[in-house]
Amino acid sequence: MLGPMSSDRPVKNVLFIMCDQLRWDAISGNGLDIIDTPNIDRLAARGVRYQRAFVQGAVCGSSRMSFYTGRYVLSHGTRWNRIPLAINQMTLGDHLRPLGVRTVLIGKTHMTADVEAMNRLGLDPDAPENLFLAQGGFEATERDDGLHPDRPGVHDLPYNRFLRDHGFEGDNPWHSAANSVRDEHGNLISGWLLRASPYPSIVPDELSETAYLTDRAIEFMRSAGETRWCAHLSFIKPHWPYVVSEPYHQLVAADEIPPPRRSEAELHHHHPVLRAFQESRVGWAFRSERARNSVYPAYLGLVKQIDDHLGRLFDEMATMGRLDDTMIVFTSDHGDYLGDHWLGDKDWLHEEAIRVPMIVVDPRAEASATRGTSSSDLVEAIDLVPTFIEAMGGDPADGEPWLEGHSLVPSLHQGAEIGRRGAVCETDYGFLEMSERLAPSSRARDRRATMLRTQRYKYILSETGPNLLYDLDEDPEEFHDRIDDPGLATVRSELHEQLFEWFRARAHDTTYRDATMARLAAPGGMARVGILIGYWDEAELAAGVAGELY
Amino acid sequence: MLGPMSSDRPVKNVLFIMCDQLRWDAISGNGLDIIDTPNIDRLAARGVRYQRAFVQGAVCGSSRMSFYTGRYVLSHGTRWNRIPLAINQMTLGDHLRPLGVRTVLIGKTHMTADVEAMNRLGLDPDAPENLFLAQGGFEATERDDGLHPDRPGVHDLPYNRFLRDHGFEGDNPWHSAANSVRDEHGNLISGWLLRASPYPSIVPDELSETAYLTDRAIEFMRSAGETRWCAHLSFIKPHWPYVVSEPYHQLVAADEIPPPRRSEAELHHHHPVLRAFQESRVGWAFRSERARNSVYPAYLGLVKQIDDHLGRLFDEMATMGRLDDTMIVFTSDHGDYLGDHWLGDKDWLHEEAIRVPMIVVDPRAEASATRGTSSSDLVEAIDLVPTFIEAMGGDPADGEPWLEGHSLVPSLHQGAEIGRRGAVCETDYGFLEMSERLAPSSRARDRRATMLRTQRYKYILSETGPNLLYDLDEDPEEFHDRIDDPGLATVRSELHEQLFEWFRARAHDTTYRDATMARLAAPGGMARVGILIGYWDEAELAAGVAGELY
Repeated sequence: MLGPMSSDRPVKNVLFIMCDQLRWDAISGNGLDIIDTPNIDRLAARGVRYQRAFVQGAVCGSSRMSFYTGRYVLSHGTRWNRIPLAINQMTLGDHLRPLGVRTVLIGKTHMTADVEAMNRLGLDPDAPENLFLAQGGFEATERDDGLHPDRPGVHDLPYNRFLRDHGFEGDNPWHSAANSVRDEHGNLISGWLLRASPYPSIVPDELSETAYLTDRAIEFMRSAGETRWCAHLSFIKPHWPYVVSEPYHQLVAADEIPPPRRSEAELHHHHPVLRAFQESRVGWAFRSERARNSVYPAYLGLVKQIDDHLGRLFDEMATMGRLDDTMIVFTSDHGDYLGDHWLGDKDWLHEEAIRVPMIVVDPRAEASATRGTSSSDLVEAIDLVPTFIEAMGGDPADGEPWLEGHSLVPSLHQGAEIGRRGAVCETDYGFLEMSERLAPSSRARDRRATMLRTQRYKYILSETGPNLLYDLDEDPEEFHDRIDDPGLATVRSELHEQLFEWFRARAHDTTYRDATMARLAAPGGMARVGILIGYWDEAELAAGVAGELY
Repeated sequence: MLGPMSSDRPVKNVLFIMCDQLRWDAISGNGLDIIDTPNIDRLAARGVRYQRAFVQGAVCGSSRMSFYTGRYVLSHGTRWNRIPLAINQMTLGDHLRPLGVRTVLIGKTHMTADVEAMNRLGLDPDAPENLFLAQGGFEATERDDGLHPDRPGVHDLPYNRFLRDHGFEGDNPWHSAANSVRDEHGNLISGWLLRASPYPSIVPDELSETAYLTDRAIEFMRSAGETRWCAHLSFIKPHWPYVVSEPYHQLVAADEIPPPRRSEAELHHHHPVLRAFQESRVGWAFRSERARNSVYPAYLGLVKQIDDHLGRLFDEMATMGRLDDTMIVFTSDHGDYLGDHWLGDKDWLHEEAIRVPMIVVDPRAEASATRGTSSSDLVEAIDLVPTFIEAMGGDPADGEPWLEGHSLVPSLHQGAEIGRRGAVCETDYGFLEMSERLAPSSRARDRRATMLRTQRYKYILSETGPNLLYDLDEDPEEFHDRIDDPGLATVRSELHEQLFEWFRARAHDTTYRDATMARLAAPGGMARVGILIGYWDEAELAAGVAGELY
């Protein structure tokens, strides 16, 4: 077995593990501590646990495109699920390819190809040579977006074929077996319904989607040979449908779940968007004890199941020697309210929804000093692309102007702080049913909010209704909106201005690099290419070309 | 000859005439009135003269990409000359193609293709099928960017071949003949040098670039047949090199030019960017009477020359019947300081630099009532693409989310006001020689300013140094920066907030339409496609799918 890598060598591979809808506090050591996740802890013991990591978008699609492009939602433009990633955007795969690295997908991306632009440019979205482009820069070893509703039609998913090979019949055993249950009377209940969660999934654990994707990851690593890779193992769970295989469905009892984190003050908050979220179907559903008692135990069971399968994966990696040459990241695309703040699902900007676990293991000797530490630096999802580039031997500066995050390698090696002034997360409620009712006179695309989260404050600029302000030192649970607090007037306007600066600093203009500008701006640079502006005569020109005159 | 078109017919063609570097006040009726431009006046008599029209970028490249995409510079990303237009951007040509309209280029675009992205997408920039894409959505009938410095190499320009056919030898007669002069001793002087301007260009008027491009436009119209077209006749002049053929070089005497529009207060303004512009080569050059006396008469001669050739063009169009079925626009990509405000060339945000002539003729009967009127509505360059779409029978709403301007057709037909709260123009000095010296610690790409121009005020948000504020009612010449005036504190913060709203409203997310959102957000919409969030049981689900429950 190899020892830790020597100091000037890049890591050979990256394993980029993502859960879907995993709250920051659901794994051990992060708050709830209802279940143990020893295998995730085992990762954390070898790496750094970033405890203030925030996603950039509040739903799968927008958040993931930030993870995969290293860019804010405002910059990549995929503001919600099913919104195509614009054809011009550079992805992780585009950045790693020049380093000779395969980027491999095992699981979910929620990426939608920009077919309209592909058609306009004469690029066939189905042609094999365009697959990388149509799949968000991943070689789609095993693509599964994990959202296969019960509708008539073809469900041509490898996991469905796998389940059928194991005797689960039908068009879509993803739904009818893996995401359905039978109650005590043998009646079939769809796992989409909240009342299904206390029952075990029809498929056993070893055939669950979590087990299946883990198997595919192991299989990939065994067959990968000497080619360097960045493998994105992207679990579907603990995202809804909230059902889990035996025995995970009964690991946690209904009376062991935490009480809802919510206050009466929140329920009476006048903010139209907050109220609409509270009154939405899912908000209303999770207000009830019934839903929480049904779903929360299954949710934690799904997390425990992931941890167990990760244990299996890490053991296999140890055997293969892959723990020694592979950077491992464990994170999630967003959280889940589960009834906190009188809300369900996600889409809004409380910590429960947009703060995620973020554990990074750098196997190299330089990271020895930081192993097992945790950091309260403000980290963003967009930091991962530059981290991977640097860890794999590239220069994140080559990603300019695309990349908007910071490599975590200096933090992993020297404990250096990024020193980010604030983390930003964007949300769009224009796609939700509440939207039309809430802001009928606005353009659908203006139904948005942008959060700026500093170490102390959270400021939310809401395009509908007033802005919001929380002091997280005094009110870590975000029960009290302080936007009208005269004592915080200066803070409020400073955060507003900081957010304006953030908007102005976005790199929408991606077709040139700072170096291009510097070359044009060099003294005498224009004159040297024959563009002569403001020279009276030949003598001035000669001096100008020589760079002597300004 | 056809009469005016009947009320529900679209115009057949569009003639989109652009000058380069033509100040708003240089044509007759707009302020200076030193030369007459009767042919432009003839246009204005048939159309509407928009007297408060502003470009969106302060140099050719950025301004033109706004004209050609209907988008602000922040949105299309081409912030300066020679910056590629990102491959995903939709152009005028893309919008008009579905209407069966050819978009034809005769002259300058200053468009640079996004070759890096084309290579990444496997699109050959030189392949004939990609020419439309590589030329900014124009069929490049006659492309001439009019900037052909005197450098060794191939100058394979049709105009150069034309000049060689007429006996002007050399690699690059564009420079050595059309843009060079001989002094009284027969010595050759490059037209790039300011001292050359009082002498006539070596080529006679009928072989000048202005005559040549006009000829090509006439030739195109004669050969166009029945296909509908949008022809962009894009003159190189009065842009530098400031030399003009006989007799235009001596139409205006040095003592007839207007005095410089500048104040001592401006010269002592502490603003670092203003000072750097004043102290730049071209600012310094135009501070002198020598440069103004030499250049200004030639500049006005170039304008007069354009007007004469337009007269010839309009006569030809009348003969062909094209005046009756063709919308005609006359405008410019930006202005020219010519010594005003102690500045030369352009790049900054005074009216001299960013306010342009804008005359629109709609030949249809519906526009009869507005013919010969002028409008003080705030108009932007980005209004032209939607205007052309509507005039040609399309629906500008189909251009959503790309188009950020407003069609002028309601204004042309009913005199309706757009009612824009403010016009925006952006500038980047990061590409200029002054840039490094001025703001060495900033990222090159942060060396920017954004102007908001309301009917009364001009607010400039400068990323280097303080912001600027002018009250144009009290100070139409923009001599007095009022940013520190306590009496304008409220105005200042309102304009600042208005500009922040403008930044937030930009459509960077262009891969979906409002209609897509509305469909997803329809009551029960998600449930109908099988995505069931927050339903307890089958009864709730049935009600939800029926849209009965929220």
